[in-house]
Amino acid sequence: MRPSSVQKRDAVLRAAEEQFLATGYESVTMDSIAKGSGVAKQTLYSHFGSKRALFLELVTASTSAARVAALAAAPTPETTGDPRDLLRERLVAQLGQVLRPRVLALRRLVIGELPRSPELAAALHENGPRRAIAALADELRRLDAAGVLAVPDPVSAATQLNWLVMGEPVNRAMLLGDEAILTPKEIEEHVAEAVAVFFRAFAPGPGGAGAQR
Amino acid sequence: MRPSSVQKRDAVLRAAEEQFLATGYESVTMDSIAKGSGVAKQTLYSHFGSKRALFLELVTASTSAARVAALAAAPTPETTGDPRDLLRERLVAQLGQVLRPRVLALRRLVIGELPRSPELAAALHENGPRRAIAALADELRRLDAAGVLAVPDPVSAATQLNWLVMGEPVNRAMLLGDEAILTPKEIEEHVAEAVAVFFRAFAPGPGGAGAQR
Repeated sequence: MRPSSVQKRDAVLRAAEEQFLATGYESVTMDSIAKGSGVAKQTLYSHFGSKRALFLELVTASTSAARVAALAAAPTPETTGDPRDLLRERLVAQLGQVLRPRVLALRRLVIGELPRSPELAAALHENGPRRAIAALADELRRLDAAGVLAVPDPVSAATQLNWLVMGEPVNRAMLLGDEAILTPKEIEEHVAEAVAVFFRAFAPGPGGAGAQR
Repeated sequence: MRPSSVQKRDAVLRAAEEQFLATGYESVTMDSIAKGSGVAKQTLYSHFGSKRALFLELVTASTSAARVAALAAAPTPETTGDPRDLLRERLVAQLGQVLRPRVLALRRLVIGELPRSPELAAALHENGPRRAIAALADELRRLDAAGVLAVPDPVSAATQLNWLVMGEPVNRAMLLGDEAILTPKEIEEHVAEAVAVFFRAFAPGPGGAGAQR
Protein backbone atom coordinates (compact mmCIF):
# COMPACT_ATOMS: atom_id res chain seq x y z
CA MET A 1 0.00 0.00 0.00
CA ARG A 2 1.32 3.44 -0.88
CA PRO A 3 1.53 5.99 1.92
CA SER A 4 -1.35 8.46 1.91
CA SER A 5 -0.70 12.16 1.43
CA VAL A 6 -1.43 12.70 5.14
CA GLN A 7 1.26 10.14 6.03
CA LYS A 8 3.65 11.80 3.58
CA ARG A 9 2.93 15.21 5.05
CA ASP A 10 3.64 13.93 8.56
CA ALA A 11 6.86 12.25 7.43
CA VAL A 12 7.99 15.48 5.76
CA LEU A 13 7.19 17.64 8.80
CA ARG A 14 8.92 15.19 11.16
CA ALA A 15 12.07 15.03 9.03
CA ALA A 16 12.06 18.80 8.51
CA GLU A 17 11.67 19.55 12.22
CA GLU A 18 14.47 17.17 13.11
CA GLN A 19 16.84 18.72 10.57
CA PHE A 20 15.93 22.35 11.32
CA LEU A 21 16.44 21.82 15.05
CA ALA A 22 19.69 19.88 14.55
CA THR A 23 21.48 22.21 12.15
CA GLY A 24 19.54 25.49 11.94
CA TYR A 25 17.33 26.90 9.22
CA GLU A 26 20.02 27.85 6.68
CA SER A 27 21.75 24.46 6.49
CA VAL A 28 18.60 22.51 5.65
CA THR A 29 17.65 22.09 1.97
CA MET A 30 14.63 20.67 0.18
CA ASP A 31 17.03 17.92 -0.94
CA SER A 32 17.95 16.95 2.63
CA ILE A 33 14.28 16.96 3.68
CA ALA A 34 13.39 14.77 0.69
CA LYS A 35 16.14 12.31 1.66
CA GLY A 36 15.20 12.38 5.36
CA SER A 37 11.50 11.80 4.78
CA GLY A 38 11.70 9.40 1.84
CA VAL A 39 9.35 11.66 -0.11
CA ALA A 40 10.29 12.64 -3.67
CA LYS A 41 11.63 16.15 -4.03
CA GLN A 42 9.08 16.88 -6.75
CA THR A 43 6.25 15.90 -4.37
CA LEU A 44 7.82 18.11 -1.69
CA TYR A 45 7.78 21.13 -3.97
CA SER A 46 4.26 20.46 -5.26
CA HIS A 47 2.89 20.14 -1.69
CA PHE A 48 4.82 22.86 0.11
CA GLY A 49 6.16 25.19 -2.59
CA SER A 50 9.40 26.18 -0.88
CA LYS A 51 11.60 25.56 2.16
CA ARG A 52 10.23 28.72 3.72
CA ALA A 53 6.60 27.66 3.18
CA LEU A 54 7.40 24.24 4.60
CA PHE A 55 8.94 25.76 7.72
CA LEU A 56 5.94 28.06 8.12
CA GLU A 57 3.69 25.00 7.95
CA LEU A 58 5.85 23.35 10.61
CA VAL A 59 5.62 26.34 12.97
CA THR A 60 1.87 26.54 12.51
CA ALA A 61 1.40 22.79 12.99
CA SER A 62 3.64 22.72 16.06
CA THR A 63 2.09 25.68 17.88
CA SER A 64 -1.44 24.62 16.92
CA ALA A 65 -0.72 21.14 18.25
CA ALA A 66 0.59 22.61 21.51
CA ARG A 67 -2.52 24.77 21.81
CA VAL A 68 -4.93 21.95 21.08
CA ALA A 69 -3.14 19.73 23.58
CA ALA A 70 -3.30 22.49 26.20
CA LEU A 71 -7.02 22.94 25.66
CA ALA A 72 -7.62 19.19 25.73
CA ALA A 73 -5.65 18.85 28.96
CA ALA A 74 -7.59 21.67 30.60
CA PRO A 75 -10.91 20.74 32.16
CA THR A 76 -14.14 22.00 30.61
CA PRO A 77 -16.24 24.43 32.67
CA GLU A 78 -18.66 21.63 33.57
CA THR A 79 -16.13 19.31 35.19
CA THR A 80 -15.13 21.47 38.12
CA GLY A 81 -16.67 23.68 40.76
CA ASP A 82 -14.11 26.29 41.82
CA PRO A 83 -13.40 28.80 39.04
CA ARG A 84 -9.91 29.43 40.39
CA ASP A 85 -9.10 25.72 39.96
CA LEU A 86 -10.34 25.84 36.40
CA LEU A 87 -8.15 28.79 35.47
CA ARG A 88 -5.20 27.27 37.27
CA GLU A 89 -5.49 23.94 35.48
CA ARG A 90 -5.84 25.62 32.12
CA LEU A 91 -2.69 27.67 32.74
CA VAL A 92 -0.76 24.65 34.03
CA ALA A 93 -1.60 22.88 30.77
CA GLN A 94 -0.64 25.91 28.68
CA LEU A 95 2.70 26.44 30.41
CA GLY A 96 3.49 22.71 30.32
CA GLN A 97 2.92 22.62 26.57
CA VAL A 98 5.30 25.50 25.91
CA LEU A 99 7.98 24.24 28.31
CA ARG A 100 8.88 21.28 26.09
CA PRO A 101 12.33 21.03 24.54
CA ARG A 102 11.07 20.79 20.93
CA VAL A 103 8.65 23.71 21.28
CA LEU A 104 11.35 25.83 22.94
CA ALA A 105 13.90 24.87 20.29
CA LEU A 106 11.54 25.83 17.48
CA ARG A 107 10.83 29.11 19.22
CA ARG A 108 14.55 29.88 19.51
CA LEU A 109 15.11 29.01 15.86
CA VAL A 110 12.23 31.20 14.70
CA ILE A 111 13.42 34.17 16.79
CA GLY A 112 16.96 33.82 15.46
CA GLU A 113 15.57 33.75 11.90
CA LEU A 114 13.47 36.90 12.30
CA PRO A 115 15.88 39.21 10.43
CA ARG A 116 15.65 36.94 7.37
CA SER A 117 12.17 35.40 7.66
CA PRO A 118 9.87 37.56 9.82
CA GLU A 119 6.77 35.65 8.68
CA LEU A 120 7.87 32.60 10.70
CA ALA A 121 7.93 34.45 14.01
CA ALA A 122 4.68 36.22 13.09
CA ALA A 123 3.05 32.81 12.57
CA LEU A 124 4.34 31.65 15.95
CA HIS A 125 2.97 34.79 17.60
CA GLU A 126 -0.44 34.32 15.97
CA ASN A 127 -0.74 30.64 16.86
CA GLY A 128 0.95 30.92 20.24
CA PRO A 129 0.59 33.89 22.60
CA ARG A 130 -2.10 35.75 20.67
CA ARG A 131 -4.52 32.82 20.67
CA ALA A 132 -3.64 31.84 24.23
CA ILE A 133 -4.48 35.36 25.39
CA ALA A 134 -7.73 35.41 23.41
CA ALA A 135 -8.79 32.13 25.06
CA LEU A 136 -7.90 33.51 28.51
CA ALA A 137 -9.92 36.65 27.78
CA ASP A 138 -12.99 34.48 27.07
CA GLU A 139 -12.46 32.76 30.39
CA LEU A 140 -12.16 36.10 32.22
CA ARG A 141 -15.35 37.38 30.56
CA ARG A 142 -17.17 34.37 32.02
CA LEU A 143 -15.67 34.96 35.48
CA ASP A 144 -16.64 38.64 35.30
CA ALA A 145 -20.21 37.80 34.25
CA ALA A 146 -20.44 35.31 37.12
CA GLY A 147 -19.30 37.99 39.58
CA VAL A 148 -16.24 35.95 40.58
CA LEU A 149 -13.84 38.61 39.31
CA ALA A 150 -14.21 42.23 38.25
CA VAL A 151 -12.55 42.49 34.84
CA PRO A 152 -13.44 45.73 33.04
CA ASP A 153 -11.01 45.01 30.16
CA PRO A 154 -10.75 41.24 29.60
CA VAL A 155 -8.09 41.36 26.85
CA SER A 156 -5.80 43.61 28.87
CA ALA A 157 -6.29 41.51 32.02
CA ALA A 158 -5.78 38.27 30.07
CA THR A 159 -2.52 39.65 28.69
CA GLN A 160 -1.36 40.48 32.20
CA LEU A 161 -2.36 37.05 33.50
CA ASN A 162 -0.67 35.34 30.56
CA TRP A 163 2.68 37.00 31.30
CA LEU A 164 2.39 36.64 35.07
CA VAL A 165 2.33 32.91 34.31
CA MET A 166 4.47 32.52 31.19
CA GLY A 167 7.04 35.33 31.54
CA GLU A 168 9.61 34.01 33.97
CA PRO A 169 9.59 30.28 33.16
CA VAL A 170 9.56 30.73 29.38
CA ASN A 171 12.23 33.45 29.45
CA ARG A 172 14.45 31.34 31.72
CA ALA A 173 14.11 28.31 29.49
CA MET A 174 14.73 30.40 26.36
CA LEU A 175 17.96 31.87 27.76
CA LEU A 176 19.20 29.12 30.08
CA GLY A 177 18.24 26.09 28.03
CA ASP A 178 16.31 22.94 28.75
CA GLU A 179 17.92 22.46 32.17
CA ALA A 180 15.91 25.48 33.32
CA ILE A 181 12.58 23.86 32.41
CA LEU A 182 10.35 23.66 35.48
CA THR A 183 9.25 20.28 36.78
CA PRO A 184 5.50 19.51 36.73
CA LYS A 185 5.38 20.23 40.48
CA GLU A 186 7.15 23.57 40.03
CA ILE A 187 4.75 24.47 37.22
CA GLU A 188 1.79 23.81 39.53
CA GLU A 189 3.26 25.97 42.29
CA HIS A 190 4.29 28.77 39.95
CA VAL A 191 0.84 28.94 38.35
CA ALA A 192 -0.91 28.84 41.74
CA GLU A 193 1.12 31.87 42.92
CA ALA A 194 0.43 33.81 39.72
CA VAL A 195 -3.30 33.07 39.85
CA ALA A 196 -3.44 34.09 43.52
CA VAL A 197 -1.89 37.47 42.67
CA PHE A 198 -4.27 37.88 39.75
CA PHE A 199 -7.35 37.05 41.87
CA ARG A 200 -6.27 39.57 44.52
CA ALA A 201 -5.84 42.29 41.87
CA PHE A 202 -9.15 41.56 40.15
CA ALA A 203 -11.31 40.73 43.15
CA PRO A 204 -14.75 42.36 43.00
CA GLY A 205 -15.58 45.04 45.53
CA PRO A 206 -13.50 47.73 47.26
CA GLY A 207 -9.75 47.41 46.78
CA GLY A 208 -10.06 45.18 43.71
CA ALA A 209 -10.49 46.11 40.08
CA GLY A 210 -14.21 46.61 40.70
CA ALA A 211 -13.33 49.78 42.62
CA GLN A 212 -11.77 51.21 39.45
CA ARG A 213 -14.96 51.24 37.38
CA MET B 1 48.47 60.10 18.37
CA ARG B 2 47.86 56.35 18.55
CA PRO B 3 44.42 55.21 19.64
CA SER B 4 44.29 54.08 23.28
CA SER B 5 43.33 50.52 24.14
CA VAL B 6 39.94 51.79 25.34
CA GLN B 7 39.34 53.38 21.95
CA LYS B 8 40.45 50.20 20.21
CA ARG B 9 38.14 48.12 22.39
CA ASP B 10 35.20 50.38 21.53
CA ALA B 11 36.04 50.25 17.82
CA VAL B 12 36.21 46.46 17.95
CA LEU B 13 32.91 46.10 19.83
CA ARG B 14 31.16 48.55 17.48
CA ALA B 15 32.42 46.77 14.35
CA ALA B 16 31.63 43.36 15.83
CA GLU B 17 28.08 44.33 16.82
CA GLU B 18 27.40 45.77 13.39
CA GLN B 19 28.63 42.64 11.64
CA PHE B 20 26.95 40.15 13.98
CA LEU B 21 23.60 41.92 13.64
CA ALA B 22 23.94 42.28 9.86
CA THR B 23 24.93 38.73 8.95
CA GLY B 24 24.48 36.52 12.03
CA TYR B 25 27.03 34.97 14.36
CA GLU B 26 28.36 32.23 12.07
CA SER B 27 29.27 34.46 9.11
CA VAL B 28 31.46 36.83 11.12
CA THR B 29 35.16 36.04 11.50
CA MET B 30 38.00 37.57 13.51
CA ASP B 31 39.35 38.62 10.11
CA SER B 32 36.22 40.56 9.20
CA ILE B 33 36.12 42.24 12.64
CA ALA B 34 39.80 43.21 12.30
CA LYS B 35 39.09 44.75 8.90
CA GLY B 36 35.91 46.49 10.09
CA SER B 37 37.52 48.01 13.19
CA GLY B 38 40.96 48.80 11.75
CA VAL B 39 42.53 46.89 14.66
CA ALA B 40 45.23 44.32 13.89
CA LYS B 41 44.05 40.72 14.03
CA GLN B 42 46.88 39.87 16.41
CA THR B 43 45.72 42.62 18.82
CA LEU B 44 42.16 41.29 18.52
CA TYR B 45 43.25 37.81 19.57
CA SER B 46 45.46 39.05 22.39
CA HIS B 47 42.66 41.23 23.81
CA PHE B 48 39.63 38.98 23.33
CA GLY B 49 41.00 35.47 22.82
CA SER B 50 38.33 34.22 20.39
CA LYS B 51 35.25 35.22 18.42
CA ARG B 52 33.09 33.61 21.09
CA ALA B 53 34.82 35.52 23.91
CA LEU B 54 34.47 38.74 21.93
CA PHE B 55 30.75 38.17 21.40
CA LEU B 56 30.31 37.38 25.10
CA GLU B 57 32.03 40.67 25.92
CA LEU B 58 29.64 42.42 23.52
CA VAL B 59 26.53 40.89 25.12
CA THR B 60 27.77 41.81 28.59
CA ALA B 61 28.70 45.35 27.55
CA SER B 62 25.40 45.89 25.74
CA THR B 63 23.12 44.60 28.50
CA SER B 64 25.17 46.31 31.22
CA ALA B 65 24.95 49.57 29.27
CA ALA B 66 21.18 49.19 28.97
CA ARG B 67 20.91 48.49 32.68
CA VAL B 68 23.08 51.42 33.70
CA ALA B 69 21.12 53.70 31.38
CA ALA B 70 17.84 52.46 32.87
CA LEU B 71 19.07 53.11 36.40
CA ALA B 72 20.40 56.54 35.44
CA ALA B 73 17.10 57.46 33.80
CA ALA B 74 15.11 56.36 36.83
CA PRO B 75 14.79 58.89 39.61
CA THR B 76 16.53 58.32 42.93
CA PRO B 77 14.31 57.79 45.98
CA GLU B 78 14.99 61.36 47.13
CA THR B 79 13.72 63.11 44.02
CA THR B 80 10.08 62.11 44.25
CA GLY B 81 7.30 61.81 46.79
CA ASP B 82 4.84 59.14 45.61
CA PRO B 83 6.38 55.63 45.74
CA ARG B 84 4.11 54.48 42.93
CA ASP B 85 5.55 57.20 40.66
CA LEU B 86 9.06 56.09 41.52
CA LEU B 87 8.41 52.47 40.63
CA ARG B 88 6.58 53.49 37.47
CA GLU B 89 9.40 55.71 36.27
CA ARG B 90 11.99 53.05 36.97
CA LEU B 91 10.00 50.49 34.98
CA VAL B 92 9.37 52.93 32.12
CA ALA B 93 13.15 53.41 31.89
CA GLN B 94 13.81 49.65 32.04
CA LEU B 95 11.27 48.79 29.35
CA GLY B 96 12.43 51.66 27.14
CA GLN B 97 16.02 50.42 27.30
CA VAL B 98 15.08 46.89 26.22
CA LEU B 99 12.68 48.03 23.48
CA ARG B 100 15.48 49.36 21.28
CA PRO B 101 16.18 47.79 17.88
CA ARG B 102 19.85 46.98 18.63
CA VAL B 103 19.12 45.44 22.04
CA LEU B 104 16.26 43.38 20.58
CA ALA B 105 18.41 42.29 17.63
CA LEU B 106 21.19 41.14 19.94
CA ARG B 107 18.67 39.28 22.04
CA ARG B 108 17.27 37.49 18.98
CA LEU B 109 20.76 36.58 17.82
CA VAL B 110 21.75 35.21 21.22
CA ILE B 111 18.58 33.12 21.51
CA GLY B 112 19.07 31.70 18.02
CA GLU B 113 22.66 30.80 18.95
CA LEU B 114 21.74 28.97 22.16
CA PRO B 115 22.10 25.46 20.73
CA ARG B 116 25.72 26.24 19.75
CA SER B 117 26.77 28.85 22.35
CA PRO B 118 24.62 28.62 25.49
CA GLU B 119 27.03 30.86 27.46
CA LEU B 120 25.96 33.89 25.39
CA ALA B 121 22.31 33.60 26.37
CA ALA B 122 23.31 32.84 29.96
CA ALA B 123 25.32 36.09 30.05
CA LEU B 124 22.33 37.98 28.70
CA HIS B 125 20.09 36.43 31.35
CA GLU B 126 22.52 37.32 34.13
CA ASN B 127 23.01 40.93 33.00
CA GLY B 128 19.44 41.48 31.86
CA PRO B 129 16.37 40.00 33.58
CA ARG B 130 18.16 38.56 36.63
CA ARG B 131 19.69 41.88 37.66
CA ALA B 132 16.56 43.84 36.77
CA ILE B 133 14.52 41.58 39.04
CA ALA B 134 17.10 41.84 41.86
CA ALA B 135 16.92 45.66 41.66
CA LEU B 136 13.10 45.56 41.68
CA ALA B 137 13.19 43.27 44.73
CA ASP B 138 15.30 45.87 46.61
CA GLU B 139 12.71 48.49 45.72
CA LEU B 140 9.85 46.27 46.94
CA ARG B 141 11.68 45.59 50.21
CA ARG B 142 11.78 49.36 50.80
CA LEU B 143 8.07 49.72 49.97
CA ASP B 144 7.23 46.84 52.29
CA ALA B 145 9.32 48.35 55.12
CA ALA B 146 7.58 51.69 54.57
CA GLY B 147 4.17 50.01 54.81
CA VAL B 148 3.22 51.12 51.30
CA LEU B 149 2.92 47.54 50.09
CA ALA B 150 2.76 44.15 51.78
CA VAL B 151 5.40 42.01 50.07
CA PRO B 152 6.16 38.83 52.02
CA ASP B 153 8.46 37.47 49.28
CA PRO B 154 10.18 40.38 47.48
CA VAL B 155 12.01 38.29 44.87
CA SER B 156 8.89 36.39 43.86
CA ALA B 157 6.84 39.60 43.74
CA ALA B 158 9.59 41.42 41.79
CA THR B 159 9.62 38.59 39.26
CA GLN B 160 5.86 38.90 38.85
CA LEU B 161 6.06 42.68 38.49
CA ASN B 162 8.91 42.39 36.01
CA TRP B 163 6.90 40.13 33.68
CA LEU B 164 3.66 42.05 34.13
CA VAL B 165 5.62 44.95 32.63
CA MET B 166 8.09 43.32 30.25
CA GLY B 167 6.21 40.20 29.06
CA GLU B 168 3.84 41.43 26.40
CA PRO B 169 5.85 44.30 24.86
CA VAL B 170 9.16 42.39 24.73
CA ASN B 171 7.55 39.21 23.39
CA ARG B 172 5.66 41.17 20.72
CA ALA B 173 8.81 42.98 19.62
CA MET B 174 10.82 39.74 19.62
CA LEU B 175 8.28 37.96 17.40
CA LEU B 176 6.79 40.80 15.36
CA GLY B 177 9.91 42.89 14.84
CA ASP B 178 10.76 46.50 15.39
CA GLU B 179 7.44 47.74 14.01
CA ALA B 180 5.84 46.32 17.17
CA ILE B 181 8.00 48.45 19.48
CA LEU B 182 5.79 50.59 21.71
CA THR B 183 5.99 54.37 21.47
CA PRO B 184 7.17 56.27 24.59
CA LYS B 185 3.54 57.20 25.30
CA GLU B 186 2.42 53.58 24.97
CA ILE B 187 5.24 52.50 27.29
CA GLU B 188 4.03 54.99 29.94
CA GLU B 189 0.44 53.74 29.69
CA HIS B 190 1.41 50.09 29.67
CA VAL B 191 3.62 50.46 32.76
CA ALA B 192 0.96 52.48 34.60
CA GLU B 193 -1.60 49.69 34.06
CA ALA B 194 0.82 47.00 35.19
CA VAL B 195 1.83 48.94 38.31
CA ALA B 196 -1.83 49.59 39.16
CA VAL B 197 -2.55 45.84 39.03
CA PHE B 198 0.53 45.12 41.12
CA PHE B 199 -0.41 47.71 43.77
CA ARG B 200 -3.93 46.26 44.03
CA ALA B 201 -2.53 42.74 44.49
CA PHE B 202 0.07 43.78 47.07
CA ALA B 203 -1.88 46.42 48.98
CA PRO B 204 -1.48 46.13 52.73
CA GLY B 205 -4.51 45.14 54.76
CA PRO B 206 -7.51 42.86 54.11
CA GLY B 207 -7.83 41.64 50.50
CA GLY B 208 -4.22 42.44 49.65
CA ALA B 209 -1.11 40.33 50.10
CA GLY B 210 -1.00 41.39 53.75
CA ALA B 211 -4.01 39.18 54.39
CA GLN B 212 -1.96 36.15 53.28
CA ARG B 213 0.68 36.39 56.00
